[in-house]
Amino acid sequence: MRLRNIPGAQEKLAAYPQYVVDAAQAQAGKWQERFPKAQALHLEIGSGKGRFITEMAKAHPDINYIAMEVQTSVALRILERQLEADLPNLQILHGNGASVEALFAEDKIDRIYLNFSDPWPKARHTKRRLTSPTFLESYEKILKDTGEIHFKTDNQGLFEYSLHSLSTYGMSFANVSLDLHNSAFEGNIMTEYEEKFSQKGHRIYRLEARFK
Amino acid sequence: MRLRNIPGAQEKLAAYPQYVVDAAQAQAGKWQERFPKAQALHLEIGSGKGRFITEMAKAHPDINYIAMEVQTSVALRILERQLEADLPNLQILHGNGASVEALFAEDKIDRIYLNFSDPWPKARHTKRRLTSPTFLESYEKILKDTGEIHFKTDNQGLFEYSLHSLSTYGMSFANVSLDLHNSAFEGNIMTEYEEKFSQKGHRIYRLEARFK
Repeated sequence: MRLRNIPGAQEKLAAYPQYVVDAAQAQAGKWQERFPKAQALHLEIGSGKGRFITEMAKAHPDINYIAMEVQTSVALRILERQLEADLPNLQILHGNGASVEALFAEDKIDRIYLNFSDPWPKARHTKRRLTSPTFLESYEKILKDTGEIHFKTDNQGLFEYSLHSLSTYGMSFANVSLDLHNSAFEGNIMTEYEEKFSQKGHRIYRLEARFK
Repeated sequence: MRLRNIPGAQEKLAAYPQYVVDAAQAQAGKWQERFPKAQALHLEIGSGKGRFITEMAKAHPDINYIAMEVQTSVALRILERQLEADLPNLQILHGNGASVEALFAEDKIDRIYLNFSDPWPKARHTKRRLTSPTFLESYEKILKDTGEIHFKTDNQGLFEYSLHSLSTYGMSFANVSLDLHNSAFEGNIMTEYEEKFSQKGHRIYRLEARFK
């Protein structure tokens, strides 16, 4: 997700410390203190413009959500949604997926969402894919034993790679769908990207995975 | 794969003991004796009319192939192909996938092919699917440690189920393809069924799996 740079975006993010945490200032182990209630903690890595996580937070007030997004101009879009919705159970984390281990080492995450992550199709960029082994190692450290990764993408190559990478790491899959929008799956909340590309006829692939 | 019953099929199979082994008479541990040379052993469970395994046997004379098929009239079609091709590295096993553990306990199989297996779509028939846990347990026993299962199907539900079942059993995947006929995969030999249904626009799904 790239947007044109928006002047003043960084300043605006900094002006709402009650909603936005900068990764550089984040305190591992203190996440639940950012919410009115300590409850199940779900993290989306790469939230894009934030529709998915905002709608999820509305639909599930009994879950605390963290929307992680590295692009400043994109994180601003999530903030704008949050300024409108004012959801007590949503925090925005302005930072990079590569740092989750340090950011959440002491917290225990119940679920990680990876939605339409950058496919990095070139072989030499394999390590940048959010489902490559180094990332999986981080996710394993920050997730509870019963924690899950929920992953969806329209990118066939990324899904094929992920089936290989996650299974080779030892993960097991549940609720695999090779055509989510023509399946019995209920309660799907579409990302902005998902709506656009499924309308173009792209299949949406989805799975849930656990470390055994 | 069902064909109309062909009168005399059983008798014809019995008339060619050099090509056809009846499961009831098969001797575990003696499979390599049925071939001129002891070499890598690949087993297809559910060979249908036998085009895949016959073409594979032609293309790979350095591998011994066993075509397993339970339906008598269908096994006859494989025999007819073999009578024409007279391949020294192909044996036909007239029997049922459920019995592989007893049939191959002492032999060590290098690879199992599952091609377009019956999807058994109803939940109450899950156990009949050739990728369900009881079958996987048998395959693990008869495969070498480095042995592989190569699985392809056009049935989306069976592929989704198999991704769940195999990963939950602890297997890892390689060379996953969610659209085999539009992929870089080389050397694919189509089954009769595959040709027919891919022409109708069905996607072909494929994976290779190992027990870790």
